[in-house]
Amino acid sequence: MKKTQTKNNPKLTLEQLGKNLVQQVKSMKNPEITLPIRALSNIEYNKKTGTLQLGSKEGKRSFFNLGHAKKFLQTVEVASILKKELLDTGKHEHLRGVFYITKRTIPGTNINIVDEQVESDKVIEDLEVITGLSREQLHVSANKMGSMVGNVSLIDSGDTIDCSKLGRGGYSIPSITDELQFKKINAKFVLYMEKAAIFERLNEDKFWQKNGCILITSQGQTTRGIRRLLQRLAEEGNLPIYVLCDGDVYGAYIYSVVKYGSIALAHASERLTIPSVKYIGITMDDIVKYDLKKQLIKLDEKDLARIKQVSQYEWFKDNKEWQKQFKMMKEFNGKVEIQALATKGVSFISEIYLPQKIKNKDFID
Amino acid sequence: MKKTQTKNNPKLTLEQLGKNLVQQVKSMKNPEITLPIRALSNIEYNKKTGTLQLGSKEGKRSFFNLGHAKKFLQTVEVASILKKELLDTGKHEHLRGVFYITKRTIPGTNINIVDEQVESDKVIEDLEVITGLSREQLHVSANKMGSMVGNVSLIDSGDTIDCSKLGRGGYSIPSITDELQFKKINAKFVLYMEKAAIFERLNEDKFWQKNGCILITSQGQTTRGIRRLLQRLAEEGNLPIYVLCDGDVYGAYIYSVVKYGSIALAHASERLTIPSVKYIGITMDDIVKYDLKKQLIKLDEKDLARIKQVSQYEWFKDNKEWQKQFKMMKEFNGKVEIQALATKGVSFISEIYLPQKIKNKDFID
Repeated sequence: MKKTQTKNNPKLTLEQLGKNLVQQVKSMKNPEITLPIRALSNIEYNKKTGTLQLGSKEGKRSFFNLGHAKKFLQTVEVASILKKELLDTGKHEHLRGVFYITKRTIPGTNINIVDEQVESDKVIEDLEVITGLSREQLHVSANKMGSMVGNVSLIDSGDTIDCSKLGRGGYSIPSITDELQFKKINAKFVLYMEKAAIFERLNEDKFWQKNGCILITSQGQTTRGIRRLLQRLAEEGNLPIYVLCDGDVYGAYIYSVVKYGSIALAHASERLTIPSVKYIGITMDDIVKYDLKKQLIKLDEKDLARIKQVSQYEWFKDNKEWQKQFKMMKEFNGKVEIQALATKGVSFISEIYLPQKIKNKDFID
Repeated sequence: MKKTQTKNNPKLTLEQLGKNLVQQVKSMKNPEITLPIRALSNIEYNKKTGTLQLGSKEGKRSFFNLGHAKKFLQTVEVASILKKELLDTGKHEHLRGVFYITKRTIPGTNINIVDEQVESDKVIEDLEVITGLSREQLHVSANKMGSMVGNVSLIDSGDTIDCSKLGRGGYSIPSITDELQFKKINAKFVLYMEKAAIFERLNEDKFWQKNGCILITSQGQTTRGIRRLLQRLAEEGNLPIYVLCDGDVYGAYIYSVVKYGSIALAHASERLTIPSVKYIGITMDDIVKYDLKKQLIKLDEKDLARIKQVSQYEWFKDNKEWQKQFKMMKEFNGKVEIQALATKGVSFISEIYLPQKIKNKDFID
């Protein structure tokens, strides 16, 4: 099934998947579904597009195969639920809800179609690669996370929301951001930060107003909803995206997921990654420049092991700037949190640090 | 220092604290600060108000006392930072930021005023009991969490926000909600739920529109900001608050914190607890009524130990309804998630379950 022909109509795509199976049954064939293999062995780092992608290796899942039968059934059952319960009604359901709906006993047996959520989650990811549709297009969501404020107004389910008029709180980002429509974007850049504490600091200082930008935070991992939102702001708003994280290997990894994608979601890179994104800080050079040595937190075994692992990832391996960062982390034997900038003054980050970085284009790529 | 006289002006309160110490120094006395003891031995469950409260035991912290000196210094230093860096400038800072600002070396020594965040956090809680002010009044925040939608409009830092016009996303609740002003509340009740997944389900189904209410979720623990917001909606809006959690001992505990308070924050009960709050579900009776036995998740050792512990808390001990719930949890040897209701249909929760509960006043107190 080609991506291009199916992307526009999820309902028809799932219907076609079913019709193909019925056709196979009618022709007395063993019903089977072809899908790209999703394993490290079939993941490629595409240097040209700068993203992780699935390779061309394919597998088959067929009904009359003892090793495949349950997985085949799960795939067809979940596809049917997504079509009937969600796409046909226009409703959305969370991964956990889809699990509960799928978790029923096969009639006439004591066997559950799925026993654990990981099974239905896996099948939903499979359906993404089988159909070329995203989980969001299939109306399946994950946990909602994060906030946005700044010079952007958008339409969310018929409501027009002006993110420059939402006080200290801001717009609570929904789990699925594909369906938002941007009404007006009047910003020079987007600043994405992992920490909600920093978001509140910058919002209180009206950083977005003074610098004409949009602020987005996740407080925790960058969800698919936030990645897609950032990508859409980069593409539809033609905006640079700057990532602000703690100065440690975990910050580097958060940045790399936004930029290149992740192994688990390599099949979704096209809809989630932002090759143009830049890392604004905290860098190891900042520790010297802004005299933060006293604020260093000593690395432990786990940090060191993670630096070793991340620095060898294909997308970091040949990147001289990042290799220098990893080397400095080891030399300092330390990491530094964004909040350490508060030692220079509560608003040092919004009045000095970030404006200087942006003015001097002091980014890591 | 009496609570009543100080609550209105945090700046003057901290100034007075300092002036008292200067006065003691000038009189050649050993400078000391009196504060209520914050330990289980001084925590009382007030049956009349239905909240956990600090008792009347007091301790002293003095400068010329080897065991007190560092803590005394920390208390005075943090008080000074809160006054000068935050209250005087009108800015807010997170607990982590206050830690970094406090974490400097005592001049002429190698000793840091604080080494770990837990030290500055503790001092901030001490300053709450010393001054009778809340952490929020002292302009110190914790992580921002949660979303709100529904029939309420409010003013946040000069922006008027109508929570009935914020799409699927909603209003992102700031970490400090004391400073919000309600402009118009046109709701019959507030439904607070731990899970953002359920919030999105109910919001998509326009539950708040159909039932004239306000929806609030935390996704995780109920932060102080959310507790204070719920309390203010209960008091200023004169609204019933219903709590929707998983059917397990953790859900019962989340409910009890909103209603009675918590041991760690007993000194702040007055500003955070809501004695009138009701538990709407999931109850153990629901498992029978709505045929959810197949959806039970088996209890493990940890669950059982927690049931034993929570059921013996003073505020649950004499509560027959809750004791019945704990007994049923053990009899079923299981717990049930809110999402299990999806097995009855994606919108069963918004169309049947909640409306029935509310109509029949089927709550636990």
